[in-house]
Amino acid sequence: MRELVVRNCSVLVVPEVGECRVDEAQDIHIRDGAITAITATGAQPDGLLDSADARSADDVEVLDATGLLAVPGLTNSHTHSPMVMMRGAAEDMSIDDWFNRKIWPMEVNLTPERVKVGARLACAEMLLAGVTTFVDHYSHADQIAEAALESGIRADLAPTFFSSTGTEGRDAAFAAAREIRTLGLSVANGRPPRITASLGPHAPYTVTDEDLRRTAEVARAEGFRMHLHAAETEDQTQSSIDRLGVTPIEVLARTGVLGAGTLIAHGCGIRDSDLPLMEPFADRTAIACCPKVYLKLAMGSTTPIKSLQSIGIPIGIGTDGAAVHNTLDVWESLRLVALTQKQREQEAEWMTVSDTLRLATRGGATAAGLTHLTGAIEPGRRADIALLDLAAPHHQPIHDPRASLVYSTRASDVVHVLVDGDVVVRNRTLTTVNLPDIIEDARSLAHTLVDLSANSTIQTYAP
Amino acid sequence: MRELVVRNCSVLVVPEVGECRVDEAQDIHIRDGAITAITATGAQPDGLLDSADARSADDVEVLDATGLLAVPGLTNSHTHSPMVMMRGAAEDMSIDDWFNRKIWPMEVNLTPERVKVGARLACAEMLLAGVTTFVDHYSHADQIAEAALESGIRADLAPTFFSSTGTEGRDAAFAAAREIRTLGLSVANGRPPRITASLGPHAPYTVTDEDLRRTAEVARAEGFRMHLHAAETEDQTQSSIDRLGVTPIEVLARTGVLGAGTLIAHGCGIRDSDLPLMEPFADRTAIACCPKVYLKLAMGSTTPIKSLQSIGIPIGIGTDGAAVHNTLDVWESLRLVALTQKQREQEAEWMTVSDTLRLATRGGATAAGLTHLTGAIEPGRRADIALLDLAAPHHQPIHDPRASLVYSTRASDVVHVLVDGDVVVRNRTLTTVNLPDIIEDARSLAHTLVDLSANSTIQTYAP
Repeated sequence: MRELVVRNCSVLVVPEVGECRVDEAQDIHIRDGAITAITATGAQPDGLLDSADARSADDVEVLDATGLLAVPGLTNSHTHSPMVMMRGAAEDMSIDDWFNRKIWPMEVNLTPERVKVGARLACAEMLLAGVTTFVDHYSHADQIAEAALESGIRADLAPTFFSSTGTEGRDAAFAAAREIRTLGLSVANGRPPRITASLGPHAPYTVTDEDLRRTAEVARAEGFRMHLHAAETEDQTQSSIDRLGVTPIEVLARTGVLGAGTLIAHGCGIRDSDLPLMEPFADRTAIACCPKVYLKLAMGSTTPIKSLQSIGIPIGIGTDGAAVHNTLDVWESLRLVALTQKQREQEAEWMTVSDTLRLATRGGATAAGLTHLTGAIEPGRRADIALLDLAAPHHQPIHDPRASLVYSTRASDVVHVLVDGDVVVRNRTLTTVNLPDIIEDARSLAHTLVDLSANSTIQTYAP
Repeated sequence: MRELVVRNCSVLVVPEVGECRVDEAQDIHIRDGAITAITATGAQPDGLLDSADARSADDVEVLDATGLLAVPGLTNSHTHSPMVMMRGAAEDMSIDDWFNRKIWPMEVNLTPERVKVGARLACAEMLLAGVTTFVDHYSHADQIAEAALESGIRADLAPTFFSSTGTEGRDAAFAAAREIRTLGLSVANGRPPRITASLGPHAPYTVTDEDLRRTAEVARAEGFRMHLHAAETEDQTQSSIDRLGVTPIEVLARTGVLGAGTLIAHGCGIRDSDLPLMEPFADRTAIACCPKVYLKLAMGSTTPIKSLQSIGIPIGIGTDGAAVHNTLDVWESLRLVALTQKQREQEAEWMTVSDTLRLATRGGATAAGLTHLTGAIEPGRRADIALLDLAAPHHQPIHDPRASLVYSTRASDVVHVLVDGDVVVRNRTLTTVNLPDIIEDARSLAHTLVDLSANSTIQTYAP
């Protein structure tokens, strides 16, 4: 048994409903990666005869967190982690040009090695920022799994496929998901696996109804969730209606995707008329909102979180890929969720600091398929925790630490990070991987990703 | 003569029009606070017989900036710096409640000491973030001037007044502006003063036409600029039309404010019909855009930058006060300008990274009344420079450093900061003031600012 006590921190308590609060002077007791108790600093954990404090100092690692605030590790609920390799390579473009002139032609250059180098960099960036889980959608996902395991981060990985690659491409993606799931279990040592898999059809406009139907069948039969893009913009929804007579959400309903359980990225084009179709599956559906992308690509709308929450759909917060978001910083994303939701609803009292923090933590856990496993600092959850220092001038004086987290925090305020009870970032330094090597590898390969000389593309954006 | 060479940095070149670029391996030569030359590292500055490199090492300070990117120091074009003392104290509220239930009742508690403590903290936060100039609007502005001088930051300070304080309050604010101007000149040692003053009527809805007219007269007679809030929201514009039959901009035109030269904060409610009134005064008008505030207060619109630029009006970027913006981080603000302008115009190709950087630098200089003095790294300008390290994973790999600056930079990437050639931040540490003392003072007084027990207010928001 491995034990750890995070000593003398404040703790952000995020209840399932209502206001968040901060409890001061707390010890977080962790055994075999799980939170076993949270006690007033120095007090004995109730009912834990064999508690950390009762043992000799040799048995228990103590992480002194005096002056720090413990926050549930954030979840990046939708990303394409290896796209960090294209960061800044497609700026100031319409969504059509971004896909058709830059990103999809660049992705002709993807190789397992390049994907792995990108994923390693992405895991490093996220962990240093206090992101302890990410939900990914990309090709060569086996490489991403290896990078994630190496770094110690938690991840759910969906191997992407398009119907343009035929039944073979589709089935290869299913096989990749199975292998990742097996890998995650094989290294879990009896704990809940850090690495899980979902099935990853790209979107209703790039995957046929037949392939969506088949994916839903495999998901049901083998206990996978799905993760796809749908109703990304109002334009996509209108185009779907024009072409097919139905909205993208209706496509997901009629192909069984909603029924099988799915994380939908974006959903900015979800209409009120879609809600009754989604409501019966609210227990197995989630939406990831990535607002920086909607603004940057001038997509014209954002996720209708208020409507979706009214029918019980859980919401997570994501960055999407860094080729458009430029960072994998969920602090930035959650702040933008608060700001853009207030704007969308024209209601400054809406999307409060407490509600925003809940989306980035509990909501993210559900989006990742990990409800009850991560997303809160409470006994029974895995110890996925970010410890922040709010002493810098951009936070001071602190009238409300919850507001500090939403509106003042920079990722650089994160000092230590735990995933599954392991200290993966200590004093702002990764303990699991060699960051200079990762950056050097990424730099040396960066030019290969943005090479357009093949004059080819993996796909055409014409939703 | 004091000489400094910033050695072996990259330099962000922000031209008056067109794309920004980054020149690598440059030395920036500084004498008596002014940039005298920019040369390839190691080369002799042309035509400078008495150049730094020709002198003995004793005469010249060298700041090794290997691996760093030199960026023109940013300008915070509109803020109320001492409001950092109320950071996080009024969250999730409508604009009416924010003013009437929180901020203006809290400001009953303002004292010279509390304003100074807040301003000292604000100057520290801004300098550490690479903000070298701020344009302020607040009461007890003499205290802000002292805090700014002590920190070494550049500032233009407008002592705020409302007509509710009568002729006496108005004239006292004019006198305060005169005193600040005199103070700035008295400590300038023959250089352009770091501290300048503007006249600060609060807004057309809190200051009578008569007082606006009088302010414009004093401004013309004594060579001041003005700085006020106007057309902050569409609602304000509509309310002005309903009450007075004219828009806020028409009020500024008929009272001579536009003609005398004014920095207008926000202007989200500026209508197309206002543009012909503003165009004749484009040479002496500027607008400060603070988008985080417009989103957070659900104000419904943002500054119509495209229309304003079409008639030649310069635009700066600001944070507004930290009681709503929560930080004084202009990197955050400039990113939001890019994102929200793309959204406003529904045009992802608009407000490019180059244009955004130009607003935050050259635009800010003009907003501060300091055109040609700051806002660019070029011979003849004062040496107001931020040196950033873009080596961290959230920037890597770098395909476009301009995109890194707009979309990836955190204020924590700022390493060294120069104002007027003085190194005021070295290795992320303020050289001019004692930060722990400043934070301790702010903490100890914070509760006094948010005390509502007086059950009073300085003003009512009913525009």
